[in-house]
Amino acid sequence: MKQIPYKIYLTENEIPTAWYNVRAEMKNDIAPMLHPQTLKPITFDDLEPIFCRELAKQELNNTDKYIEIPEEVRNFYKMYRPSPLVRAYCLEKALGTPAHIYYKYEGGNTSGSHKLNSAIAQAYYAKEQGLSSLTTETGAGQWGTALSMACGYFGLDLKVFMVKCSAEQKPFRRGVMETYGASVTPSPSMETEAGRRINEMYPGNTGSLGTAISEAVEVATKTENCRYALGSVMSQVMLHQTIIGLESIKAFEKIDEYPDIVIGCAGGGSNLGGLMAPFMSDRINGRHNPYFIAVEPASCPSLTRGKFGYDFCDTGHVTPLAKMYSLGNGYIPSSSHAGGLRYHGMSAILSQLYHDGFLDEARSVKQTEVFDAAVQFARVEGILPAPESAHAIRVAIDEAEKCKETGEEKVILFGLTGTGYFDMYAYMAHNRGEMKDYVPSDEELEQGFATMPNIE
Amino acid sequence: MKQIPYKIYLTENEIPTAWYNVRAEMKNDIAPMLHPQTLKPITFDDLEPIFCRELAKQELNNTDKYIEIPEEVRNFYKMYRPSPLVRAYCLEKALGTPAHIYYKYEGGNTSGSHKLNSAIAQAYYAKEQGLSSLTTETGAGQWGTALSMACGYFGLDLKVFMVKCSAEQKPFRRGVMETYGASVTPSPSMETEAGRRINEMYPGNTGSLGTAISEAVEVATKTENCRYALGSVMSQVMLHQTIIGLESIKAFEKIDEYPDIVIGCAGGGSNLGGLMAPFMSDRINGRHNPYFIAVEPASCPSLTRGKFGYDFCDTGHVTPLAKMYSLGNGYIPSSSHAGGLRYHGMSAILSQLYHDGFLDEARSVKQTEVFDAAVQFARVEGILPAPESAHAIRVAIDEAEKCKETGEEKVILFGLTGTGYFDMYAYMAHNRGEMKDYVPSDEELEQGFATMPNIE
Repeated sequence: MKQIPYKIYLTENEIPTAWYNVRAEMKNDIAPMLHPQTLKPITFDDLEPIFCRELAKQELNNTDKYIEIPEEVRNFYKMYRPSPLVRAYCLEKALGTPAHIYYKYEGGNTSGSHKLNSAIAQAYYAKEQGLSSLTTETGAGQWGTALSMACGYFGLDLKVFMVKCSAEQKPFRRGVMETYGASVTPSPSMETEAGRRINEMYPGNTGSLGTAISEAVEVATKTENCRYALGSVMSQVMLHQTIIGLESIKAFEKIDEYPDIVIGCAGGGSNLGGLMAPFMSDRINGRHNPYFIAVEPASCPSLTRGKFGYDFCDTGHVTPLAKMYSLGNGYIPSSSHAGGLRYHGMSAILSQLYHDGFLDEARSVKQTEVFDAAVQFARVEGILPAPESAHAIRVAIDEAEKCKETGEEKVILFGLTGTGYFDMYAYMAHNRGEMKDYVPSDEELEQGFATMPNIE
Repeated sequence: MKQIPYKIYLTENEIPTAWYNVRAEMKNDIAPMLHPQTLKPITFDDLEPIFCRELAKQELNNTDKYIEIPEEVRNFYKMYRPSPLVRAYCLEKALGTPAHIYYKYEGGNTSGSHKLNSAIAQAYYAKEQGLSSLTTETGAGQWGTALSMACGYFGLDLKVFMVKCSAEQKPFRRGVMETYGASVTPSPSMETEAGRRINEMYPGNTGSLGTAISEAVEVATKTENCRYALGSVMSQVMLHQTIIGLESIKAFEKIDEYPDIVIGCAGGGSNLGGLMAPFMSDRINGRHNPYFIAVEPASCPSLTRGKFGYDFCDTGHVTPLAKMYSLGNGYIPSSSHAGGLRYHGMSAILSQLYHDGFLDEARSVKQTEVFDAAVQFARVEGILPAPESAHAIRVAIDEAEKCKETGEEKVILFGLTGTGYFDMYAYMAHNRGEMKDYVPSDEELEQGFATMPNIE
């Protein structure tokens, strides 16, 4: 029997030349986004003042199964892709499981996560359109870092509104963005109307993604030759992230294996959908039938305890409404160390797929269990995972333990979306035994649901 | 013409199965190390109480050209090696140079540097010998992190003495080591005789590598089943690091190129020697004739302004003496952001090779120029380099600029030893324009030389 290597690499020529658009194959397409003022379905003309033209088109595209990756984007991909599909031999051995555990490792670039896959595409389209700058918001900082790298590469100015408490807690993240030439403004700032209003209403507040989005959109629409870029939730972002799943499938072909279970962490949904969508196409077309598990934090359980319905994508109600699983745009998740998973809603595409049973299962896990898995993984596999990614590791280990009981040689794939180098406060709290768990009560969830608009 | 890919990967089967021992081929072997008390040549029996048996043997081996890499070490290598040889297409384009620039990228693992190559070997030999623990010291933290990972993997206890000011400036480095199960003690501590003595003599002092070495050696020799591990300078470390150069040569064979110039940064010399030694073998055996450049900080110019002679390897005079280029064991380099290059001496092997003209040139560069190169590189190549590695980048860019003038299509290889994720204070100082240069005066160097013993 041929020995499967530790790392399965594609050649650069095998990098997919097109992203996969699952909307073209979905049984039920997503409900249209609604305009925040008129509540009418969003059109290209509504999106165009905010997003690059090409990205506005991609956002609405539900017909083209594949969308070509521009050559300049493919060339940038070659600097850090194909990312390896790794056989976790050492983890398998440590667990004593007959399961074959694989992870697709997206953390091997300076942004430290998969975010670069979409950032470089978005920056490219901005440059192609002749724009001179972009704005965005960032919380934990991976997205801001990735877009800074992409804008630095294409010579675009970038203004990042960074949630104020994150900017203070993660000064090094800000340092990386500035090294790549971005300007970083803690949000809420006094530079925008939205920021001034919030600062007046809530003096001394430390910001939120909702506020930062409002500031970034305001600057983008008021600045000449400028647009806004978003790192998750939107369909365009998930589209770009399908490079993850497409590469994974090709790598599995090389070793003649195929996953029985595909596991990803669930924040806004872009990495999860990017990993899973191409495998879902295999199911839709009857080629294979893997089982899909989304893992979310117990503190922000949009899929496991949320409601499926229209909601605003932001707290400030400046963005369109999407039909999705949501905890309510007014739901404020407890502070958690997985900043990338603290979003009240979920990608409309993944929400619909979950609603229709194509995404088989969502599972919520507690933070302390997640860090136990992260440390266990780090010690045997040598990679210090991001707290977000460690949610997927937790469930991969749980599933592998089940295989140990049953003796099944299941093939398990999970997405290792990033590294935890900028999350050391969290690891240090865990090392000291000071990490806490938080599960919202039903009453708290009801308060969140009450902030969802009542739209059929 | 066949297009050379961005990244040239070897397969796992192509990972070298033996390290290369340049001492077996050197025109003049290094002078023997001397015992710090007796000043007599060091023997195996002198080394064995401090180092693992197998490592003590390797330290003295000047006859075996190749030393087999144990299978368990090779298996660990497979988790993060072969490391890619990268064609810096984007840097070439940005510079407009006809030169072909390549870098061997050793930063793609959680320790963030090449240090893991030797750490895993040293931990393996400790485990094989039945030891239960190791001690070491760390300054900037890469070595401590790498050895923590290696000891975590093999289930060995590790006690790291971390230079106190580094432990305070880099709390996250400490956090990573603790996550991998190591115990980290800021040095000088009150746990050892050496530490208590130093604390008494210099109250409130913030430590040095010299002190941390003394503490680590003391604990190793006083603890049952325990030895001491060192991350640079020693011949055994450079031996393990030859995996870098050996892989590079194989990768160049795949694309039918060969470097005209090989560039590395010079601290204690292990990465530099590890990259260069296999290429030097090509010169010694008449196969190729590349030009070798070592790059060191102007603030710690051991090769360019040091003296070739016997000196202690540490400030506290507990370690053996080596014949090497040195600024004197009492030389205290100015604080610099490249913590890994602040060593007063240089590997005895590289010193001899430089003395004999096999290492062609040493060049010193100033910190601000180094960070200019680091940022330029980061923006086009997407990797945020460690300050140490950026010394090599500086000279690679300088050489590529020369090619632009002359029109020569030289092939330039440099070692990209690590990432700068834990060096953001330095980048932030550079971003703010607050970074300073320091070049020691001749008087300062004379004071350092005065601390070298007078031994022929």
